[in-house]
Amino acid sequence: MISKNKTLSDLGETGIIRLIQGKSPHELPSYVKKGIDDDCAVLETASNRVLLVTTDTLIEGIHFTGRTISAEALGWKALAVNISDIAAMGGAQQTAFLSIALRPDSQASFLESFMAGFNALAGKTGVVLAGGDTVESPSFAAITITLLGDCLPEHVVYRSGARAGDDVWVTGPLGNAAAGLFLLQNKEAGAPSEYDALVRAHQKPMPLFKLGRALAEGGLVHAMIDISDGISKDLGHVCEQSGVGAVLEAASIPLSSDLSRLAAEMGKNPLDWALHGGEDYALLFTASPADKAKIESLTAKLSGSPATRVGAIVREDGISLVYHEGKVPLEPCGYLHFSKPRE
Amino acid sequence: MISKNKTLSDLGETGIIRLIQGKSPHELPSYVKKGIDDDCAVLETASNRVLLVTTDTLIEGIHFTGRTISAEALGWKALAVNISDIAAMGGAQQTAFLSIALRPDSQASFLESFMAGFNALAGKTGVVLAGGDTVESPSFAAITITLLGDCLPEHVVYRSGARAGDDVWVTGPLGNAAAGLFLLQNKEAGAPSEYDALVRAHQKPMPLFKLGRALAEGGLVHAMIDISDGISKDLGHVCEQSGVGAVLEAASIPLSSDLSRLAAEMGKNPLDWALHGGEDYALLFTASPADKAKIESLTAKLSGSPATRVGAIVREDGISLVYHEGKVPLEPCGYLHFSKPRE
Repeated sequence: MISKNKTLSDLGETGIIRLIQGKSPHELPSYVKKGIDDDCAVLETASNRVLLVTTDTLIEGIHFTGRTISAEALGWKALAVNISDIAAMGGAQQTAFLSIALRPDSQASFLESFMAGFNALAGKTGVVLAGGDTVESPSFAAITITLLGDCLPEHVVYRSGARAGDDVWVTGPLGNAAAGLFLLQNKEAGAPSEYDALVRAHQKPMPLFKLGRALAEGGLVHAMIDISDGISKDLGHVCEQSGVGAVLEAASIPLSSDLSRLAAEMGKNPLDWALHGGEDYALLFTASPADKAKIESLTAKLSGSPATRVGAIVREDGISLVYHEGKVPLEPCGYLHFSKPRE
Repeated sequence: MISKNKTLSDLGETGIIRLIQGKSPHELPSYVKKGIDDDCAVLETASNRVLLVTTDTLIEGIHFTGRTISAEALGWKALAVNISDIAAMGGAQQTAFLSIALRPDSQASFLESFMAGFNALAGKTGVVLAGGDTVESPSFAAITITLLGDCLPEHVVYRSGARAGDDVWVTGPLGNAAAGLFLLQNKEAGAPSEYDALVRAHQKPMPLFKLGRALAEGGLVHAMIDISDGISKDLGHVCEQSGVGAVLEAASIPLSSDLSRLAAEMGKNPLDWALHGGEDYALLFTASPADKAKIESLTAKLSGSPATRVGAIVREDGISLVYHEGKVPLEPCGYLHFSKPRE
């Protein structure tokens, strides 16, 4: 442990790189011919597989604040959101490249905790830190992780494969992460400790890397995406790229009992969190109705509970939400970067 | 052209992604099976080659300011510094992943110019933009590019291959970029327009991608690195990783006439810029003295002027600088992130 009052500038660039490098949970696997200490990382690739690449940036003040997430959870989450993208293609995560910009007067223990969280998830998922960049920031922290993975070409699942008549499935309860963030931002709403599952969903999401791969390898899914912006927006991406529409059944959207309880206490509609909240890092996929039983059994086995069929793909453009009272168009209300505040 | 008074929040996230995606200079080559619009990019890799990966972050206020670089030059430079890393391994640059954090009230024309600069260099070097992330920043701009390339495994040149007795070579004149930055930061020092070559070296460095690859493929070099932090620091990396030392000849360090003129006018030692300035994105490599003639001819052919032999690798640790008066140890004084200001 680094003492509390050491800053990053006490450590210096070399000390920082040593801190990042030194806590890696794995010896480098043989396909990493060179890791952190050259101009580039050098990786062997398997000849029969395609490379998957994803990159996500988290900005302090936009994606997180010290008030709502610990350094350790942030390190976990920064990697989790990228693993979730690889999972949504049906691939296997492999090497990560971490770029981190921090103020020189940041506590060195912040970076130590960040790496502990990163390494905890890297250890569980077999991810190897193979490179990156560590730079000074004049104010807020900025973290970019690029994650590489691979997949057999015939198993890659794109957003564009949904067909009219497909069932639409989602894993897990939705909206927990958004409700957890609401709690952390509104401490008067209730003690976060009473809603552990919600807070944990926001701070330390567990990407469904085994499930994404198994669904793809089983040839069970036609289109897949991870729910990072909210189902309304992410299902919209699938529909747009597949040239189809969808009908969602409001009564089928899976809600946790904690979410329903908090919504009731706050006088809120739990569906708002579930449909538009985002950051669930659940998987949304479409599949033939003939595979319903196989999907329920596989998802139960690999993610603890069966996935939920929430609707169907239709030929007509647009997404509609069916209530018992009727049917309304569902607008994409996930988080929009650069959008003007509503007036 | 986008009108001057449009901001990024006027454009919205979708408009921004369209702007970034739409100006790509290439149709996607066949090895890019999926580009920007899915959870991951999907790339085919050649079975007999290794993958090279590098990532670099540029932070406004640390690595650049609007006062010293235009948006267009910044787009060029952000890509150039990554291509230079691939070149220093002897590889060929291929796909780029651009993460960019900007204030919502940034002018849309800033991003348009940034992409024009990025695409100008991408076009010259065959780089394809295959993914990224576009996020909101609360204040300064932050840019991370991850660049992938490839190389035959037997041609990869590491930092660790230098041997006692090797010649040490550098391309181009050194220090121009640092002198250019000095001029831009100290307008009273002289009109930047009188020192075009210096200013251009800072703003729009041209990475030596053909030369790096040719040196590696010719089997001519034992160790190679790009000079990004200054020769004193970068040669230090080579020596440390190769378990050797080096002797540099001060009189051999290549200086441009513009650099010497500016140094004379400012009463500065031009060697300070050349040894410690950084951001040259020149190549430093070591090679057997037997290959001197081949190296001179290849470097003259591919970079316009022959590389310069500036010293030799020795068995003893450390780097010394030989003047006609004697020999002094050379300390690494390149830019150190997180270092405390000197008192």
